[in-house]
Amino acid sequence: MMKTNHFASFVRELYKEPNEFIPLHVPVFRGKEKEYLLDTIDSTFVSSVGKYVDDVEKFCANYTDTKKAVAVVNGTAAIQVALRLAGVIPGDEVITQALTFVATANAIAYNNAHPVFVDVDLDTMGMSPDALRSFLEEFGEKREDGVFNTKTGKLIAAVLPMHTFGFMCRITEIKHICQEWGIPLVEDAAEALGSKSEGQSAGSFGLLGAFSFNGNKIITAGGGGIIVSNDAYLGQQAKYLTTTAKKPHPYEYFHDELGYNFRMPNINAALLLAQMEKLESYRLAKANVYKQYHEFFSKVYKKIELMPIPEALHSGIIG
Amino acid sequence: MMKTNHFASFVRELYKEPNEFIPLHVPVFRGKEKEYLLDTIDSTFVSSVGKYVDDVEKFCANYTDTKKAVAVVNGTAAIQVALRLAGVIPGDEVITQALTFVATANAIAYNNAHPVFVDVDLDTMGMSPDALRSFLEEFGEKREDGVFNTKTGKLIAAVLPMHTFGFMCRITEIKHICQEWGIPLVEDAAEALGSKSEGQSAGSFGLLGAFSFNGNKIITAGGGGIIVSNDAYLGQQAKYLTTTAKKPHPYEYFHDELGYNFRMPNINAALLLAQMEKLESYRLAKANVYKQYHEFFSKVYKKIELMPIPEALHSGIIG
Repeated sequence: MMKTNHFASFVRELYKEPNEFIPLHVPVFRGKEKEYLLDTIDSTFVSSVGKYVDDVEKFCANYTDTKKAVAVVNGTAAIQVALRLAGVIPGDEVITQALTFVATANAIAYNNAHPVFVDVDLDTMGMSPDALRSFLEEFGEKREDGVFNTKTGKLIAAVLPMHTFGFMCRITEIKHICQEWGIPLVEDAAEALGSKSEGQSAGSFGLLGAFSFNGNKIITAGGGGIIVSNDAYLGQQAKYLTTTAKKPHPYEYFHDELGYNFRMPNINAALLLAQMEKLESYRLAKANVYKQYHEFFSKVYKKIELMPIPEALHSGIIG
Repeated sequence: MMKTNHFASFVRELYKEPNEFIPLHVPVFRGKEKEYLLDTIDSTFVSSVGKYVDDVEKFCANYTDTKKAVAVVNGTAAIQVALRLAGVIPGDEVITQALTFVATANAIAYNNAHPVFVDVDLDTMGMSPDALRSFLEEFGEKREDGVFNTKTGKLIAAVLPMHTFGFMCRITEIKHICQEWGIPLVEDAAEALGSKSEGQSAGSFGLLGAFSFNGNKIITAGGGGIIVSNDAYLGQQAKYLTTTAKKPHPYEYFHDELGYNFRMPNINAALLLAQMEKLESYRLAKANVYKQYHEFFSKVYKKIELMPIPEALHSGIIG
């Protein structure tokens, strides 16, 4: 077991923790988290509305270069609503990957649609464009009203790849296949805030994208998610559906669709904004950890090959 | 419009606000809100788990005298899961009231079930037991596998009354009717934390009850809800379903049912615990406001009759 001990020693040295348990992820709070939280209490704006909600939405739209970002209660809710806005209705199928958290498939199920799983690529851990193409060539049939699965007879209403652990899948190829077939692309970018492919942000490739701010993500809102879209109308609809589809009115409550109580509370947005302000420093810290792992596995412990990050190569983190 | 001015003057005097806009509801933070929030940052426990989640669940179970309380992301989610645990499945009907926030009917729809609306009582604004009985006598048919609506052919899977603005509906009578017909009772107690009927807490009469801690409630978590039950197994299942139905395991993710990402983040629970510790003082403050309204409408401005609160009479707030 000498090899394991070697690796363990490397990790303990890296994290400067000689004895204690090293958790997989711990949120780091080095920004204005406390200041912003106290401000929500002083202002009494802890709930449905508040400036922090607006601020995190603006930050995220700007950061991912999308037209509209909508803060919601968690990443699962973000995927659920993104799929609905992409046109998924009960009985449809959504092509996704099995290597993901259960939320991806659950979000499909909440729309009363069915997940269809295709393989991931070994080197990205995300949906394989080859597997997607093969599946569509074997089972897909283009008709006037969409692409149907000839085996099940169901409409293939969306493609939902996931960027595993923030590694980008071959999203540009997947996008081209979706365009070729005319199937809406929705990105489960839950783990990928800050990840890019050829300079473009995760979440911004498809019709809509979904991020998560659970405690195990690069930044956290305690619990939270964000939907992004480059389609201003869909972005507006995302806000509408996630705030119970209530028509604006000073006192009447008129809801003209089945909406959701999915808004992010202002107190969670306050925490998230402080985290967003430090996002780049967390990205650099993670890149530095990657660099050290890379050196360890390429120079010291060559029996395991570390997964390459194309973007890390491009950006000069390693090389 | 002299009368309106009179009433307006009374309200302005009551709230010691001569000129400015008086909001319908503002959260009040006079407890340990700031201390507990800062503690979540210092401990890094802001997300899925943490002592505040445990504490608010214990408080609520104790306060409502129920066996188990499960903290969730909002009141809508609480109703949705409570209905599912009561046995509501797609295609069923749930009897409820139309005088409520849209969440009540939405929670039914999320279970792919159908709301059936019966009248409320004029003096409680909550579901009328007479209307419920009439409906069941006209349309209900007891069969081996449940009570069916003879008009639609659907199973009536639950009765879901709501305690409007915290006024208790005639819950004991409704409970008896449900027992007589063998239909599960679920209470939408979203607005009724602290309300009682004959000494028993709102939320504790049915199989399960749901509370909300949105910003407009007597106490707030920013956003939050709690499911309560006197059935220990259902309480345990509520926890399980609202934490993605994940089987306990140190690292494997095995989910054996369609669960939800509905847990309350620890940061919201921290705020809520501080609010819970002050709940009695808020209840007394509201009782005092009610007393002054009561005096105004019974002595000064007799053209409008204020709704009586039976419990207020019982508890000596007025009389």
